[in-house]
Amino acid sequence: MTSQNAMQVPQPLTAYNIKPLFNSVDAFLFDCDGVIWKGDKLIDGVPQTLDMLRSKGKKLIFVTNNSTKSRRQYADKFHSLGLSVAEDEIFSSSFAASMYLKVNNFSPEKKVYVIGGDGILEELHLAGYTGLGGSYIILQEDGDKRAQLKSDYLFQHDKSVGAVVVGLDPNINYYKLQYATLCIRENPGCLFIATNRDAVGHMTDLQEWPGAGCMVAAMCGSTEREPIVVGKPSTFMMEFLLKKFQIDTSRMCMVGDRLDTDILFGQNAGCRTLLVLSGVTTQSTLENPENNIQPDYYTSQVSDILELLEH
Amino acid sequence: MTSQNAMQVPQPLTAYNIKPLFNSVDAFLFDCDGVIWKGDKLIDGVPQTLDMLRSKGKKLIFVTNNSTKSRRQYADKFHSLGLSVAEDEIFSSSFAASMYLKVNNFSPEKKVYVIGGDGILEELHLAGYTGLGGSYIILQEDGDKRAQLKSDYLFQHDKSVGAVVVGLDPNINYYKLQYATLCIRENPGCLFIATNRDAVGHMTDLQEWPGAGCMVAAMCGSTEREPIVVGKPSTFMMEFLLKKFQIDTSRMCMVGDRLDTDILFGQNAGCRTLLVLSGVTTQSTLENPENNIQPDYYTSQVSDILELLEH
Repeated sequence: MTSQNAMQVPQPLTAYNIKPLFNSVDAFLFDCDGVIWKGDKLIDGVPQTLDMLRSKGKKLIFVTNNSTKSRRQYADKFHSLGLSVAEDEIFSSSFAASMYLKVNNFSPEKKVYVIGGDGILEELHLAGYTGLGGSYIILQEDGDKRAQLKSDYLFQHDKSVGAVVVGLDPNINYYKLQYATLCIRENPGCLFIATNRDAVGHMTDLQEWPGAGCMVAAMCGSTEREPIVVGKPSTFMMEFLLKKFQIDTSRMCMVGDRLDTDILFGQNAGCRTLLVLSGVTTQSTLENPENNIQPDYYTSQVSDILELLEH
Repeated sequence: MTSQNAMQVPQPLTAYNIKPLFNSVDAFLFDCDGVIWKGDKLIDGVPQTLDMLRSKGKKLIFVTNNSTKSRRQYADKFHSLGLSVAEDEIFSSSFAASMYLKVNNFSPEKKVYVIGGDGILEELHLAGYTGLGGSYIILQEDGDKRAQLKSDYLFQHDKSVGAVVVGLDPNINYYKLQYATLCIRENPGCLFIATNRDAVGHMTDLQEWPGAGCMVAAMCGSTEREPIVVGKPSTFMMEFLLKKFQIDTSRMCMVGDRLDTDILFGQNAGCRTLLVLSGVTTQSTLENPENNIQPDYYTSQVSDILELLEH
């Protein structure tokens, strides 16, 4: 079975088409924000649906662009919401960033400057790298630092920084932007890695906030460079997933709430795709003639899978 | 006389070609940062050169993308450096932003949210508009505010904001980014105006720092919108200049240190162009085969005009 044709009209998930989809899929890949939860609130019917899928022998994999947490921190969040999910079922863009460095034999003697949060720094630490700049508890936080714009002041940066990782950072400031810009512009060969480029995300339950795409664009603006993106829709994370789970991508279904990350990621990797309307994408956005990313299926929320199968 | 051909090889300014250039020009337009000064230090020979040009009857006009100051504040800076320049000889991108609103009949009953500094807010105030968000002394400063990312917190923004102006802001933070993003995404018809898109600038004498292009890109990243740019290389400011000075653009020479703003601005407006190497552009950047912006002339610094004419 091959990936869908992008020009195909997406089908609403129904009691008729759910069975063939279910039977043709061995693994369900879920985005988290807007699919499993919204901010700190679980979306209705998710636990029962995941339990049913596991009971039918389906693999469950969670693929999130949100870099603010490490895999360990995500496992804690799942548990706190009453969901039993193991660390190695979770693929976050924070993990992907440090895995990108590993795969590319980035020297542990070089340092990594981070615009982002704990998640990235913890994953770097677990991979044996030294992160600077973020807010990981054992390290210094640059979020409270102020750039000194005095006439004769020379802003110093660490010449041993060989990579800058940029993710969502609610403590973004001019100090961090200058630090990261100097690393990329002045340290020879310095990598510029973006966890993801989501424009906005549900940082709180009630509304959207600027996403990593905001901080990444800021760095593109000051460096005039383009980043290596490791999160969705880049298929970098899929390589790891495939090594671990050994399931053909044509027997995977990517379930997500965003067209330009989740659905595109699924399509790029050759998966079936299911858009849920419980997150950032509305039905009118999906049906807008300007939208050129069409999922195979769409439905209102994850629990529809359970309801339609029981129908 | 028409604008130069972009494919033409730029000529070094010499004792032979300075005379015809000088005689064919009635007004010299100068960029400031990297041309007149660097940070707070005057570039050698500038006062004598400007005095000579005035004594020969040339109009002097100062066109700067730096939005951190108003025209009044720029006049103060010129005076503090011993240069006699009047407010109405100065065209800053802060002034251009408020003039853009005026020209487009932006209602004074609507407010303007500012990511940027005093310069923008003072110009808005002088034009009869209410600015929010920046650091103008009579207004509240959002630079010290923190976004509250609590679960049930709803970030409120002013629904009467009808324009967002983004310039260089050393106090950039997540609060401001969220505020401006909500205005652009949720207030119907809200304008998104960029003072300029310079990647970097000399915020201090000794090195470059992220420029307005950094903050503007951040806002493009979170809003997925493109701004109206009022600074160089947009020719918006030229309209004002021409009304005031009534000199044909073919009898103007734009003198600047940046190819993608100053020289392109001069070319777009139909001026002669002179690149000085006292700022961000090196001779090797100019001669790089990938550079496709070629000034008519180039020289090391402004005072060469004086030296070559006296030769």
